[in-house]
Amino acid sequence: MKLDAEFVQQLAFIKEIDQLKSVLRKTSLVQAERVENSAEHSWQVAFMAVFLQEYAEEEIDICRVIKMLLVHDVVEIDAGDTFVYDNYREAEKEELEKAAARRIFGLLPKDQGDYLMALWHEFESEETPEAKFAMALDRLQPVLHNYFNQGGNWSQFGITRQQVESVNKKIENGSGKLWQQVEIILDEAEEKGYFSPK
Amino acid sequence: MKLDAEFVQQLAFIKEIDQLKSVLRKTSLVQAERVENSAEHSWQVAFMAVFLQEYAEEEIDICRVIKMLLVHDVVEIDAGDTFVYDNYREAEKEELEKAAARRIFGLLPKDQGDYLMALWHEFESEETPEAKFAMALDRLQPVLHNYFNQGGNWSQFGITRQQVESVNKKIENGSGKLWQQVEIILDEAEEKGYFSPK
Repeated sequence: MKLDAEFVQQLAFIKEIDQLKSVLRKTSLVQAERVENSAEHSWQVAFMAVFLQEYAEEEIDICRVIKMLLVHDVVEIDAGDTFVYDNYREAEKEELEKAAARRIFGLLPKDQGDYLMALWHEFESEETPEAKFAMALDRLQPVLHNYFNQGGNWSQFGITRQQVESVNKKIENGSGKLWQQVEIILDEAEEKGYFSPK
Repeated sequence: MKLDAEFVQQLAFIKEIDQLKSVLRKTSLVQAERVENSAEHSWQVAFMAVFLQEYAEEEIDICRVIKMLLVHDVVEIDAGDTFVYDNYREAEKEELEKAAARRIFGLLPKDQGDYLMALWHEFESEETPEAKFAMALDRLQPVLHNYFNQGGNWSQFGITRQQVESVNKKIENGSGKLWQQVEIILDEAEEKGYFSPK
């Protein structure tokens, strides 16, 4: 007996996405001595969508939000993680990620590869209410980790409050209510000296 | 300005679930020198649900399958991971996991905690088509990793093919088609000497 041709393609994809567990982010675990990887991060943000749905600005299909968050970082297997406070890599990053998406989603049977590609594009385009809310959660999680870790990357890399606000302001596009809460957290973080003053 | 009381509870939960990234499983990453943790595993199986939906035995709500897979291992934060080939811990495990579920889901606002508790119970009960399919994916993933890793845990812990079949046969409850593919994989694994012969 031979494996179905379609299952062989799915096996290759399952094996490939395992590599996301080895893509390291800048954000640390909460009170632990290592940075998180993009697979763990993807789990946490997808899970957050399940219980933070009420904060969405508009009526949304939460299932599509969750699927987008499960798939959103897969391109990092080839393109690497980009620290949100680096902006010099933008143009190069876009090309690398597009090529990665073609290669990786191309491992799957065509209809499934196309489906994941469409989800990824939707997320990246930040136009639909679902994509905006998914993006808000993707940005919220590292803000919370830095707050939980008494400054975390902010202290470590000399990030100012102004930078944090400018990079994460898109949380507001997905959820004004979440952004209000974030502003309160940033006030507290500032009082506690978690940001770089310069 | 103060944070909303409900958001404070959600923050405590987000901080708590980060601990799942430190719960180690027995399964190794594919061709990498470390075992995976339960957060990464949860991401991978939830993601697998997105593109393996066609294998479900019955009509299913894939969104609930994905949510179950995102939440299914959270109790391990208190109860630890149980290796599927250990069965002596069953009774103790059940009590530990129930207590864990009460404590951890209890951190959230009541309606959300109850919702996650219901999802977790549904998964554990293995009765609905969604729970059976979620369980099938939860079992499938380590089988595939051991196969990708030339035997992995099977060789490492002296597991026979019979044990692998008996522990993972419940894949068939969620998907006869996936179980057929698994049997073909196990044939190949046997030919290649990945199991313990005893």
